[in-house]
Amino acid sequence: MRLLKTIEEAKAYIKEVKTAGRSVGFVPTMGYLHEGHLQLMKVARRECDTVIISIFVNPIQFGVNEDYDKYPRDLTRDCELAASVGVDAVFAPTAAEMYPSGYATFLEVEGLTEKLCGLSRPGHFRGVTTVVTKLFNIVQPDIAYFGQKDAQQVLVIKKMVADLNMNLTVKTVETVREADGLAMSSRNTYLNKEERQAALVLYKSLQKARDMIRAGERQKSRVIAAMEALIKAEPLARIDYVDILSIPDLRDIEELKGEILIALAVYIGNTRLIDNFMLEV
Amino acid sequence: MRLLKTIEEAKAYIKEVKTAGRSVGFVPTMGYLHEGHLQLMKVARRECDTVIISIFVNPIQFGVNEDYDKYPRDLTRDCELAASVGVDAVFAPTAAEMYPSGYATFLEVEGLTEKLCGLSRPGHFRGVTTVVTKLFNIVQPDIAYFGQKDAQQVLVIKKMVADLNMNLTVKTVETVREADGLAMSSRNTYLNKEERQAALVLYKSLQKARDMIRAGERQKSRVIAAMEALIKAEPLARIDYVDILSIPDLRDIEELKGEILIALAVYIGNTRLIDNFMLEV
Repeated sequence: MRLLKTIEEAKAYIKEVKTAGRSVGFVPTMGYLHEGHLQLMKVARRECDTVIISIFVNPIQFGVNEDYDKYPRDLTRDCELAASVGVDAVFAPTAAEMYPSGYATFLEVEGLTEKLCGLSRPGHFRGVTTVVTKLFNIVQPDIAYFGQKDAQQVLVIKKMVADLNMNLTVKTVETVREADGLAMSSRNTYLNKEERQAALVLYKSLQKARDMIRAGERQKSRVIAAMEALIKAEPLARIDYVDILSIPDLRDIEELKGEILIALAVYIGNTRLIDNFMLEV
Repeated sequence: MRLLKTIEEAKAYIKEVKTAGRSVGFVPTMGYLHEGHLQLMKVARRECDTVIISIFVNPIQFGVNEDYDKYPRDLTRDCELAASVGVDAVFAPTAAEMYPSGYATFLEVEGLTEKLCGLSRPGHFRGVTTVVTKLFNIVQPDIAYFGQKDAQQVLVIKKMVADLNMNLTVKTVETVREADGLAMSSRNTYLNKEERQAALVLYKSLQKARDMIRAGERQKSRVIAAMEALIKAEPLARIDYVDILSIPDLRDIEELKGEILIALAVYIGNTRLIDNFMLEV
């Protein structure tokens, strides 16, 4: 497995791959890999000739009071894990390599980014779309793989790719969960034992919503009230948002029908976790 | 010569060209072609296997009170002119093809776009960088050619290409002028006979600045004062801006040294014209 540290190295490697006529599957990550990431790589491995992942904790998608500095990092372990699922190359640039002094170009996807995580984290998606565009230009993938856990991120990136006529396909891979239902996340490492138990409330509230809708409930407000009641009963939990919106345009809906996203962000202690279900009603 | 009307047609054509291993030279234009545009195409013809131009009057780079509706258009004549200099394909999409309902993605280059034309035309460069990114993704050129007449546009696009790690080279081609020095522009067609004569004041003021600097003047304020005096002596002219900035970062400078851009925008009657000189002091 190749470890590519600079953009120039990465571009040279991609050029070789492309010249050999090989298809490129790409998994962008912030590292500290878990089974959710590895699942993306395994799908890419099945579908593409060459699999490249990036490991880059992207400073511009973090707010000033967020966890950029303490975000977990372990490149050695990450490279071992990537190699174990057959990844061909890891692109792991420094922040200075990606954003040299005087860096000035940013992308915005309007509308979609003003809901859910976009409200709680101003500038977050601007940072995401900017870094993903850079990574796409460097890696030039045929297919890029994203986890459904970051549902809004996937919708924003798909919209950007369509709007800007980018030459690749974005594929979404189902959320991987722990045995008890907690969505895999690098941020789960922040949780102590009590918090880990309390964090289950995200998955439970999503199950509650799904059960209500399956039983015939179509009023968004009633579903959300039930989810919120469940979360508020957990002393270590504090709601950031709980919402149900249409897919793919994230419109507000009161009557639940068509393709919908049930999404929530909840602080467990100081750790902000997100999760979601997509349903066809 | 091929006329490509849709993005799908254009992408299919480019795929053929790329598969054949041919290099692509690209000249984005808003049409109503003049000798300045043709010069870009001739350079592309010399340097690349396949030459593609786009003709698209981009609505999102025009302000609400600007000349989008009356901007001159003549696709038949443009295609004849493009064919006459050996262009292989013209991509001429509709506005609805480029910006379908719900379009939401935009690019911003900070800093550079807040000077000169960016001050007079808020949102203009956001429109330019967005459409150029779309066109680059559709045409996938090896080299894109821009005229030096739009000096700030070239600097902004070069910055965007570098910042976003785009896979192409941007080349600047010298401004083509009428016999008396007026820079070629599609907007020159707006001028009546008296205005056409008055429009010479842009070139004359640039010559004045160059002569002063060649004679040893290094104070920006004195050069600008002389340029403004010359323009104010012309009754049909009204200054939008006259400025001298550093290249490539468009920093304010008082002492003229290094690579500098002398740029101005002047209304002649109702027509806003721009011109510039780049000098090494």
